[in-house]
Amino acid sequence: MNIKFIQSYDIVIFGAKGDLSCRKLIPALYQLEKKKILNQKIRIIGVGRANWNNKEYAKKVFKALNKFCNEPIDIKIWNIFKKKLHFCNVDVTNLKDFFLLKMILSQLINIKIYYFAMPPNTFNNICKGLGSINYNNKPHRIIVEKPIGTSLASSKETNQQLRKYFQEEQIFRIDHYLGKETILNLLALRFTNPIFYNIWNNTTIEAIKITVAEQVGIEGRWKYFNQIGQTRDMVQNHLLQILSLITMSQPKKLNANCIREKKIKVLKSLKKIKLKDISKNTIRGQYTTGVINGKLATSYLNEKGSDKNSDIETFVLIKANIDNKMWKGVPFYLKTGKRLKSKKSEIVIYFKNIPNSVFKKNLNDNYKNKLIIRLEPNEGIEIQFFNKMPDINSNYKLINSKLNFNYTSIIKNKISDAYERLLLESMKNDQSLFVSQEEIETSWEWIDSIINSWKLNNMKVQLYPSGTWGPDFSNKNIK
Amino acid sequence: MNIKFIQSYDIVIFGAKGDLSCRKLIPALYQLEKKKILNQKIRIIGVGRANWNNKEYAKKVFKALNKFCNEPIDIKIWNIFKKKLHFCNVDVTNLKDFFLLKMILSQLINIKIYYFAMPPNTFNNICKGLGSINYNNKPHRIIVEKPIGTSLASSKETNQQLRKYFQEEQIFRIDHYLGKETILNLLALRFTNPIFYNIWNNTTIEAIKITVAEQVGIEGRWKYFNQIGQTRDMVQNHLLQILSLITMSQPKKLNANCIREKKIKVLKSLKKIKLKDISKNTIRGQYTTGVINGKLATSYLNEKGSDKNSDIETFVLIKANIDNKMWKGVPFYLKTGKRLKSKKSEIVIYFKNIPNSVFKKNLNDNYKNKLIIRLEPNEGIEIQFFNKMPDINSNYKLINSKLNFNYTSIIKNKISDAYERLLLESMKNDQSLFVSQEEIETSWEWIDSIINSWKLNNMKVQLYPSGTWGPDFSNKNIK
Repeated sequence: MNIKFIQSYDIVIFGAKGDLSCRKLIPALYQLEKKKILNQKIRIIGVGRANWNNKEYAKKVFKALNKFCNEPIDIKIWNIFKKKLHFCNVDVTNLKDFFLLKMILSQLINIKIYYFAMPPNTFNNICKGLGSINYNNKPHRIIVEKPIGTSLASSKETNQQLRKYFQEEQIFRIDHYLGKETILNLLALRFTNPIFYNIWNNTTIEAIKITVAEQVGIEGRWKYFNQIGQTRDMVQNHLLQILSLITMSQPKKLNANCIREKKIKVLKSLKKIKLKDISKNTIRGQYTTGVINGKLATSYLNEKGSDKNSDIETFVLIKANIDNKMWKGVPFYLKTGKRLKSKKSEIVIYFKNIPNSVFKKNLNDNYKNKLIIRLEPNEGIEIQFFNKMPDINSNYKLINSKLNFNYTSIIKNKISDAYERLLLESMKNDQSLFVSQEEIETSWEWIDSIINSWKLNNMKVQLYPSGTWGPDFSNKNIK
Repeated sequence: MNIKFIQSYDIVIFGAKGDLSCRKLIPALYQLEKKKILNQKIRIIGVGRANWNNKEYAKKVFKALNKFCNEPIDIKIWNIFKKKLHFCNVDVTNLKDFFLLKMILSQLINIKIYYFAMPPNTFNNICKGLGSINYNNKPHRIIVEKPIGTSLASSKETNQQLRKYFQEEQIFRIDHYLGKETILNLLALRFTNPIFYNIWNNTTIEAIKITVAEQVGIEGRWKYFNQIGQTRDMVQNHLLQILSLITMSQPKKLNANCIREKKIKVLKSLKKIKLKDISKNTIRGQYTTGVINGKLATSYLNEKGSDKNSDIETFVLIKANIDNKMWKGVPFYLKTGKRLKSKKSEIVIYFKNIPNSVFKKNLNDNYKNKLIIRLEPNEGIEIQFFNKMPDINSNYKLINSKLNFNYTSIIKNKISDAYERLLLESMKNDQSLFVSQEEIETSWEWIDSIINSWKLNNMKVQLYPSGTWGPDFSNKNIK
């Protein structure tokens, strides 16, 4: 790999003691070290409320690596990596503390990348603090995590806070799905392969289903989650991002501006669901007691910290439509939930049967040609198609068959984690894999209208047992 | 399997002692017995010049089964099968001998199916003989093997001989490729799968290559083969049949008339290659000494019985064009040869790259999207397509990947041999899998024009070592 472009950076992690930092950021930075992508001058500066010196911080980092890297830590690599680690004791609500940070930052002329790995209600303070020490200008940049607001209004507010101190091109908004190899592959898949490109429209496609199924429940985040719900937590960002990559038209160039332009265009074409259609076209679900992997799992309302009256959804299915020429008439099913039968993310594209096929009476309406893009696990692609049943009787009975591709057939190493890639891209100052404020706001606008309709219609959650695929919706206008 | 339609038949094999009978017909009939498709009244009547009684014939048949069935003979099945075997000592040049046959035929009112497993120069005598005993009328029928002529003129002549005694619907012309499972599947593949149907034209397809590669040489048939050559022996029948199934438009119904109508239509659209283009658009080859499977293989000119001056081709490659709206501009490469590196039959469909793909500069012109239909061996389907190279560097390097389907994933039993199926279809009186005289004549007309141009241009064979993929043609206008 050509590492010339990697100048020297100070990667400043606000929330160094937190879960995101330990679970994702530190292991990702270690992997970049292992791949020899981090040069000698790069520093990783943990920021948090602790009276640690660099050595003590290094100890904590080593512990985190051992816990969250799914591989033994290479001591040679660690010895190089640990020299990059610094710690700074900052209470972000205390402006004065930022002068401590300034002392460290000013030691090197490295470009600063601030990772806001803290709750959104701290963003304002962090921005102020960085402003007060004059370390908020280009070429410095910030990385912020979702949620960026919980509605259009609050998203705008958060953005205004950031924009007081940083320009749009300094702000890298993470949706870590955009760093996943299989999601990144979507554009390549669509725009390099004529066999897919030429059938990618409403003439041949009958429906598209995007599923992000989680097996985990709330994991101790009940109070947080209960203010948000699955729709805001997963659809507004991940599912709509996948939808936009699957449906956008071809960008002129492969740069951030051109890609974002096309994504925004398709997001803006998302049809608002009419109030009268909301109960036909959406389902809200909430998990109850059930069995997962042979173990009893408790209901959402009995989770630790719960409020027994909650009507928040842990499952949602939305039948969406895109109001443009390419996609008119094609339903998009967006489905995501917690405590489902298994963890899987996939895109399924259903094709219309051939009109007037000479084999019409042999075709079974239960089967269609399908293109399945498995995002995780078992990353790969599957095409379901028909063959003549191999049989001495030539009466053309059809059999549903599978063409299969697995990522394992083309990769030597492990697929890189999304955070590795996104940290690297932020260093390269490439915004392609980050979400623009306009995308976020467009998504919120659509999601707000759905949540609003639910409230107006007083649409309750349907219960579903943990370990199933969600509520029964056989009576709905939905696949 | 529903076997009601199997009435009772006398299957009369002219040439019962011959290679085709022992190697193909007898094993196929045994397999039909094993599948319980042959009812009790069915008789298999071997006809040949030998003083054998039924028992002696049965002994020969048992020997043939043991030699050519690729499985141990089941004695229970054999005991049922052998009761069906009869033999009749007939010299087909001797009209009187047919009265012996008549004695056997008249014992049962079974429908007679005459299999002409003898050289074409005997067809006339067989027809005459059957006419003389009045066993040539409907519902009786005949099955004839290729070659049906060696040119348009001789093909017409052979047909006239047959038609003196039999009507067109009584004549079942075998091209055993049409009985192969993977060939039968072509129509199902094309006309049930929207993912293929919608890209099956010259807008998306760049070229199609049909390869029938043999590893064997002449196998002691030098004198016969040397009068014919690979083009007449393989292209006129098998390759043009495959071509017609791959390019025909959808038939109205799945019956013989409708299918033949569409096949003939596309065969008639085959462009004649102009005399001035013949050396650019075709290659003739002849094998020389080489190594096959680690063994030395002799050259065509040193085969047993050879004439050292022969210029007959054992390899041919033809770049063909179809002059209709669907296929205008798409080259079809028809390639077949003996003593090639390995035995394989396949159809490869090359797709045009996406015009103005945003990934243009990442696309390598050596790779294209391909659909590979493997007819044999390893029956299956493969799609070659592009993925983004999984790599932390997101610069969209592309990697050629494979979607794969193997027949083994959908079959429990062995794929039925072509002859089993074709014998069964002849009993069902279904001509769909047999070739009409019009198809044969249309094919000969096109082949004659090529062979004629070779003669006029005095176009010599290029030598190629046995065990290679044929002559070098890197300097030609050919893939």
